[in-house]
Amino acid sequence: MELYIDRDDLSRGLARIQGIIERRSTQPIFAHVLLHARDGLLRLTATDSEVAYIGDLSANVQNPGDIAVEAAQLFQVVRSLPDSTVHFKLDENRRLVVRSGRANFKLLGVAAEEYPALPAFEVTGTARFTERDLRRLVEQVAFSVASEDVRWGLNGAHMERVDIDGELRVRMVATDGHRLALAEAPCEGEFQFPARQLVPRKALSVLKKLLGTGSESVVLEFGDRALQLRRDGEVFWFRLLDGEFPDYKAVIPKEKNHTARIKRSDLASTLKRVGILVHDRARAVRFAFTDDELEVQVHNVDRGEVNETVPLDLVGTEITVGFNPRYLQDILGVVGGDDVVLELAHPLAPCMVRDPESDTARFVVMPMRLD
Amino acid sequence: MELYIDRDDLSRGLARIQGIIERRSTQPIFAHVLLHARDGLLRLTATDSEVAYIGDLSANVQNPGDIAVEAAQLFQVVRSLPDSTVHFKLDENRRLVVRSGRANFKLLGVAAEEYPALPAFEVTGTARFTERDLRRLVEQVAFSVASEDVRWGLNGAHMERVDIDGELRVRMVATDGHRLALAEAPCEGEFQFPARQLVPRKALSVLKKLLGTGSESVVLEFGDRALQLRRDGEVFWFRLLDGEFPDYKAVIPKEKNHTARIKRSDLASTLKRVGILVHDRARAVRFAFTDDELEVQVHNVDRGEVNETVPLDLVGTEITVGFNPRYLQDILGVVGGDDVVLELAHPLAPCMVRDPESDTARFVVMPMRLD
Repeated sequence: MELYIDRDDLSRGLARIQGIIERRSTQPIFAHVLLHARDGLLRLTATDSEVAYIGDLSANVQNPGDIAVEAAQLFQVVRSLPDSTVHFKLDENRRLVVRSGRANFKLLGVAAEEYPALPAFEVTGTARFTERDLRRLVEQVAFSVASEDVRWGLNGAHMERVDIDGELRVRMVATDGHRLALAEAPCEGEFQFPARQLVPRKALSVLKKLLGTGSESVVLEFGDRALQLRRDGEVFWFRLLDGEFPDYKAVIPKEKNHTARIKRSDLASTLKRVGILVHDRARAVRFAFTDDELEVQVHNVDRGEVNETVPLDLVGTEITVGFNPRYLQDILGVVGGDDVVLELAHPLAPCMVRDPESDTARFVVMPMRLD
Repeated sequence: MELYIDRDDLSRGLARIQGIIERRSTQPIFAHVLLHARDGLLRLTATDSEVAYIGDLSANVQNPGDIAVEAAQLFQVVRSLPDSTVHFKLDENRRLVVRSGRANFKLLGVAAEEYPALPAFEVTGTARFTERDLRRLVEQVAFSVASEDVRWGLNGAHMERVDIDGELRVRMVATDGHRLALAEAPCEGEFQFPARQLVPRKALSVLKKLLGTGSESVVLEFGDRALQLRRDGEVFWFRLLDGEFPDYKAVIPKEKNHTARIKRSDLASTLKRVGILVHDRARAVRFAFTDDELEVQVHNVDRGEVNETVPLDLVGTEITVGFNPRYLQDILGVVGGDDVVLELAHPLAPCMVRDPESDTARFVVMPMRLD
């Protein structure tokens, strides 16, 4: 193997795989990136057996070949190189010689045959999105996925296909039992989601990093217990989680007796201040919705009190509810729009939160009993 | 106590004391800031008994008074306030009521009488510096101070007065036994340093944060086993450490048989790359100084090799030495100047590092035996 490649292209390619490689795995090979040089391309492959990334970079390949090297170290080396061109050459002792300007590294390699093979993937359907829509979909639900919950089905995001007035959408839903997030993105294609299959946390977090905010097309490919995100020169494969997702529709409130419309930035800044005095997540904060304002109140015996009012438009009668303010803050961070609407049926019923101008996302927060 | 104050002024004042307060002290009072309102000023006082900071801020004081409140929390609260004016008022339950726009906090207070009194300070001498000179002095030596060394005298920076050709300077010296840093700054004044007294690490780190890079005057005041930095509206007091500093002059090499002059940025980028393969601080890196280049070489059996050459001007014969590259990197970060000079007597003698264009700082690194 011998090739010349642009340092900054290579550095960006190696940056993308840092979220995939597992530095502390019991199998050191998962800390490696496989380099595969052929026909004007250097292919980077990284996997932890649950997710895999393949990225092709333009390169001036003198001799094709393969080698796996420690990925975090290669990234550090490449970023530090003095010249904009990098020369890779495999020596007779299976070491990758990296040259650039005055710099001259020899990095230990592992034979490509020892690199784990990626599972075969047979495409059974595809869905095409704009990059920004798919990114929004992931961002709007990822924060609600449970973390290592014993209820296995909460540890991933459920996906399904919905057809709304002839418009095809992918819906994603996540819940940790305390709050729920549901988001939809329009798409084109032919596909069916398998039942009982969830997108795990790590795949969601890699997707968030890979996806940009542009209007380019990206494709989700459907396979057997796995999905693939395909974009020009890149494939991100991830295994789905086999878990029973709860009947989320039962959690989404149908009834509303009190609807409060509030300026999102007002509520967000109030929640930020109120949070300073909340150190115990299990303690509910008092939210009193009156005809013309929302009053938020925290009394912490060890720290002090905070008391703030936010202007609102209320439809329905006054109501007082307890919330974990952190859950509302998470929602305000992803909901979009100038205003936000909170819909309540009664003080202990789930509260719906949404952007009044958009139907592509809905959020539910379970209230807490006030002392 | 009641006053109005500018939020951003107050926020900057509270930011300055965050490095002084001790959040995890066994005495919770050290996590507090004392607020003292009088005659158009709000005075902030913070201390951990080894260092203390007093800062005066302009305020519209309606009623004078004092209260101590938890400093990190007050800083968080003030930064989050919506309006540019902040209203402080002490209520009958010794709580500090903080109002700004819609926000309304009541923070628990501790009576000013419970706040530790600062020791009396009698000024026995003063030295006046430009702010940037004093900052450089501290920066150039602080990284060489030992950390909790059993040799007590290494845990602080030694200071002394030097008179060079009629110019008065303060010299600071620090060493951890592996490397030594010596820096000097010109000053004006009348003072004597007590023997056996050292500036501790925490005081150095606070000084670095307090001092800017401008040409304004700052004054060091000398007292009994303590110093004070005095600047417009601010006093930073710190206790000196009673410890025997080693005879540092014996460590500074007098002899040199090999003098290498190297472009500082070249050597710095080489050391950065070489460091990627050095994970064991106890392992020496090979530096071979030849007539026209410095060759730096690392061979790490677990990771690979790196080999780099840097152009140099050498006076004297060729020589090969082992160094911990991290120690050289630390020096290159503070030495200043386009070029750097390394002076060696023989492979196991201390190596002097300095800016050839300046006599205000000198650094010594102990070489290591090559395997």
